[in-house]
Amino acid sequence: MKTVVVYSGGLDSTVLLYHLRHLGHELRALSVDYGQRHRRELAGAEAVCGLLGIEHRIADLRSLRPLLAGSALTDDLPVPDGHYTEQSMRVTVVPNRNMILLAVAIGWAISRECGAVALAAHAGDHAVYPDCRPAFAEAMAQAAALCDWRPIAVLRPFIKMTKADLVRRGAGLGVPFEMTWSCYRGGDLHCGRCGTCVERREAFARAGVPDPTAYAPDAPPMPAVPG
Amino acid sequence: MKTVVVYSGGLDSTVLLYHLRHLGHELRALSVDYGQRHRRELAGAEAVCGLLGIEHRIADLRSLRPLLAGSALTDDLPVPDGHYTEQSMRVTVVPNRNMILLAVAIGWAISRECGAVALAAHAGDHAVYPDCRPAFAEAMAQAAALCDWRPIAVLRPFIKMTKADLVRRGAGLGVPFEMTWSCYRGGDLHCGRCGTCVERREAFARAGVPDPTAYAPDAPPMPAVPG
Repeated sequence: MKTVVVYSGGLDSTVLLYHLRHLGHELRALSVDYGQRHRRELAGAEAVCGLLGIEHRIADLRSLRPLLAGSALTDDLPVPDGHYTEQSMRVTVVPNRNMILLAVAIGWAISRECGAVALAAHAGDHAVYPDCRPAFAEAMAQAAALCDWRPIAVLRPFIKMTKADLVRRGAGLGVPFEMTWSCYRGGDLHCGRCGTCVERREAFARAGVPDPTAYAPDAPPMPAVPG
Repeated sequence: MKTVVVYSGGLDSTVLLYHLRHLGHELRALSVDYGQRHRRELAGAEAVCGLLGIEHRIADLRSLRPLLAGSALTDDLPVPDGHYTEQSMRVTVVPNRNMILLAVAIGWAISRECGAVALAAHAGDHAVYPDCRPAFAEAMAQAAALCDWRPIAVLRPFIKMTKADLVRRGAGLGVPFEMTWSCYRGGDLHCGRCGTCVERREAFARAGVPDPTAYAPDAPPMPAVPG
């Protein structure tokens, strides 16, 4: 199957790339530049695609920034410390980001005669983002089946897996985790303190896989993993 | 209701703007610049919004052109003459245009705390565009109800009306038709020959409303209107 992977350069979508490649998909990878603070992930995405010989394109949506104001990911609000699921992470919501991402990815899939787009959505994606809800994804899959004469499938193979499951799967596929970027702050190293960093560290710990990430020297020690 | 109108500057969406304003909506208008050949419509959109005192924004999506190749609306393919419904008009399809338009409009609606986006889709919209099919619009409405914590409604008040009905409605509301642009070719005057021009001329004829459009001197005489 010819498939466009919505590819942020983060851990989850890098595992998705390796997973679908393993299953024999003919892949293209699409990243979106929406002026995000954590632009490091785009360079990582480019490097991983180069390693795998996969066509990689960056959709430049920075021109939409004035329309989609109000998110700490793109504006000058501070990114909060602490766990991802906290109320404070709401400021990181980019309005309608996932619908915009999917719409552009599906447009590229149609123009390149691909039959599917794939998302790395997983069971740990948080309800702080309304467009991470399963019912939203189902409505979009319905729309994707109708937006062109040939239906486009929306694949979410990780939807029942946790992030720790993804780390385990990625380790089995030889994913170069050190090339992936999660931190929502735009530093040279992962801060180890923001929501995505905490989540990343916990996922490695839960998976029992050594975490090769270089965290900032002032990152707090790895907290005890609950459960 | 606070409503974002997807506003091309064409006849249909200008009637929509006047219609919703008449109903008391608090309006914002969003146009999209996707590098279309008929860029004249963007200037017309700006002028009409100025006339009505409505906030107007243009989402600049020209950076997506390389991804969405293969349409005569944005590429250097010739725009065909003849009636809109002919097979030849398929080259004017921009892959997934309507999903991309809606996604961006909904994002703006969320960021400005509007409760709805409105589309000028009508019964005459042609099946040559798969994303003009009602089932597609219904799936998108479902997604719009779920993409944020507050549901966004997708309004399509003209869906059972013909383009001639729209001309009649617009005439009753004092729409300045001469400020609207339909022609898919990028000339100074409407060519009078392409699919959208033929459709525009027929709609005025069927509605029994004088057509104030300035057509090019070499436009063919108005054809007999069937039925």
